[in-house]
Amino acid sequence: MREFKPNPLLVIISGPSGVGKDTVLKAMKAGGFPFHFVVTMTTRPPRPGEVNGEDYIFVSEEEFNKALRSGALLENAVVYGHHYGVPKEQVRKAVESGKDVLMRVDVQGARTLRGLIPEAVFIFLVPSSEEELLRRLKIRHTEDEEALKLRLSKFREEMESLSEFDYVVVNADGKLDETVQTILAIIKAEKCRTKQRKVQIPL
Amino acid sequence: MREFKPNPLLVIISGPSGVGKDTVLKAMKAGGFPFHFVVTMTTRPPRPGEVNGEDYIFVSEEEFNKALRSGALLENAVVYGHHYGVPKEQVRKAVESGKDVLMRVDVQGARTLRGLIPEAVFIFLVPSSEEELLRRLKIRHTEDEEALKLRLSKFREEMESLSEFDYVVVNADGKLDETVQTILAIIKAEKCRTKQRKVQIPL
Repeated sequence: MREFKPNPLLVIISGPSGVGKDTVLKAMKAGGFPFHFVVTMTTRPPRPGEVNGEDYIFVSEEEFNKALRSGALLENAVVYGHHYGVPKEQVRKAVESGKDVLMRVDVQGARTLRGLIPEAVFIFLVPSSEEELLRRLKIRHTEDEEALKLRLSKFREEMESLSEFDYVVVNADGKLDETVQTILAIIKAEKCRTKQRKVQIPL
Repeated sequence: MREFKPNPLLVIISGPSGVGKDTVLKAMKAGGFPFHFVVTMTTRPPRPGEVNGEDYIFVSEEEFNKALRSGALLENAVVYGHHYGVPKEQVRKAVESGKDVLMRVDVQGARTLRGLIPEAVFIFLVPSSEEELLRRLKIRHTEDEEALKLRLSKFREEMESLSEFDYVVVNADGKLDETVQTILAIIKAEKCRTKQRKVQIPL
């Protein structure tokens, strides 16, 4: 009888801006699960409590453009004026770990990765309602009505990408643990598939 | 923003004879989860502790054949001389419940159901090893070497069907709770799929 040894997974966690991708990833890290986390690069300033090299690799525009020009990024995107990118070096390390790999990218980045790594598991986080999203954005930013309107229309546009993903997980206010449990369930289930995904990364 | 209301699932739990399908289903029932369980019909005698109408509908050969002839069974199979069948009436009730439906069938029956209800979730239980299966069979039956050999060859044959299933779950000795947790994770993950299954049962 052959042994069932599932392949390592590459799990892409994405979703509209403001849905709480960073918070969910932080909670997944804090859970002490045997995953390898890819650290992405960004030009956005660190939020309170964020650690360079852990939450993100925080760089200047200049450093980012240098990485981009030298072909060091697997994908990159601009979200609200800030650059985000996935360093190939990070992905290489992740694959070498032999563990299941988790990665957080914006919706644009997820689309690019879908083309590059179709065998990855694509999870789309959504808020429980538009009102909830707006409330979060208002807390996070001190933006005027016009900026919030723009964000809402951007949110609706990003929601259109939902069907390109494998799974949709509601990340509701005050239910972070439920979100984490659902992502863990998805990973557990994927490891039981008779047709295992064979992740190949074009590095 | 549209609400995410997953469709009810039909989960078929199957696997080779002796793998512990009945035990797993009993544990799922005992867990108090909001599932509807389909009760199947059989001519095999009740095992100690099994309740008629709950674990199975226990019937005579004559009653079984009557049900079969009248077209009351969705599928039926013979396993080690005993008849097993899924009463349509049971499935009708299950669908009407609006809940996720769980059903346990033998490998032969699962193949038939795959043709009838391709949108169901098919889970294949396996023992952790052939040795474990043999140990269980020896405990359950007081069979001679010849009968055990026959069962082992039948087991290997049934294992060939694995790839026709969606998921494979190891039901290891003394780890029943892990099996239940894995099945629950599969159900949770399936409910998050962006492409929801649309179960249609030919009744």
